[in-house]
Amino acid sequence: MSHTPGVRQAQKQKTRQALMDAALGLLEEQSLSSLGLREVTRAVGVAPTAFYRHFPSVADLGVALVEEALGSLHPMIRTTVSPAEDSDERIARAVELIAGHVAAHPAHVRFIARERHGGVQPVRDAIREQLARFAQEVKTELAKDPVSAGWSDADLLMLAGLYVDQMLVTGSLFLEALEVQDDQEAQDDHGAQKEARRRAADTATRQMRLISIGRRHWLD
Amino acid sequence: MSHTPGVRQAQKQKTRQALMDAALGLLEEQSLSSLGLREVTRAVGVAPTAFYRHFPSVADLGVALVEEALGSLHPMIRTTVSPAEDSDERIARAVELIAGHVAAHPAHVRFIARERHGGVQPVRDAIREQLARFAQEVKTELAKDPVSAGWSDADLLMLAGLYVDQMLVTGSLFLEALEVQDDQEAQDDHGAQKEARRRAADTATRQMRLISIGRRHWLD
Repeated sequence: MSHTPGVRQAQKQKTRQALMDAALGLLEEQSLSSLGLREVTRAVGVAPTAFYRHFPSVADLGVALVEEALGSLHPMIRTTVSPAEDSDERIARAVELIAGHVAAHPAHVRFIARERHGGVQPVRDAIREQLARFAQEVKTELAKDPVSAGWSDADLLMLAGLYVDQMLVTGSLFLEALEVQDDQEAQDDHGAQKEARRRAADTATRQMRLISIGRRHWLD
Repeated sequence: MSHTPGVRQAQKQKTRQALMDAALGLLEEQSLSSLGLREVTRAVGVAPTAFYRHFPSVADLGVALVEEALGSLHPMIRTTVSPAEDSDERIARAVELIAGHVAAHPAHVRFIARERHGGVQPVRDAIREQLARFAQEVKTELAKDPVSAGWSDADLLMLAGLYVDQMLVTGSLFLEALEVQDDQEAQDDHGAQKEARRRAADTATRQMRLISIGRRHWLD
């Protein structure tokens, strides 16, 4: 069996992705520090040694998962904070974007929340670097806003960090709301899940509004 | 060997505490979902079956650790947000209290940060309950403040939640600053650690100030 390099490359990419997907699935119930290489290869149906064709270690697979979970969010976050007059509308859109992202990628969001303070240093560092990049990007957008006239660099970065933290806190709130759904599924009680999500959105909206009020009066 | 009930009770309490301390130590490098009962009893030097005299399961030991880590903070938090005219002074005191707490109990703070989204549901629930209690207590203190005249119940709870989140975010910042110290210890570079802590305090102070400005203008 001979494959062209392109086909071989595509097959390799497919196995790599299968390993990442399997790991993410296994991580719903455990943390990365306890995840064994063999568990991952067994779930995919490849030999343990095949793992090393794709990742030097489980920690490196974790770093790849960080990139997968957060790397694609940079454009979205920039758009969300880009200058807009109607602040309430922008907040509503941001909260909705976060809710939609958590609903679409709960395992990725949980992975980041859990491993941010987890036992695997390279993964912790990768998450920290991604969040620092977010903060820098948000700061760049904030600096373009006329409201930011007169703000020091340190204050802009502080506000950007507050927005990024708030994004993570809101993501956690929606993740907890999803858990309410899971808990209650047996009773088919979708009301409780909906209510938890509505409350999460309401809290997040009020908190972002308070931060934006603080922002407007920062230089008073 | 016959002991009086009081001595026996004291001995039992001592073993229980030894199990909790050993678990907390083991949890520096792993998460609760992967912690084995035998690892804990081995670290203490008692038989595995002795564990059940103190806790029905490792998850229950985790819940006890949540109580140990957060239960004692309720009076401190109430004092920190209790009404005071000088807002900047109050913020500085709060940031200092958090920094001091993280420096004194880093393992407890890391445990809460990690297990808040960890794989052990009863522990996650216990943390969530403690944080909800904090929010209610902060809300009660905020309601006493004349600044809160005219605030709705939902808004007060939102603000209380924001303060509790901010406390956790600040705790994480100081925890990360402590890690800088650990990484650099080999080079005895205490400057980097000090600088990281100073930056953490500075960011936390600015963020709390912005929130307090948002608070003062909330009903404008």
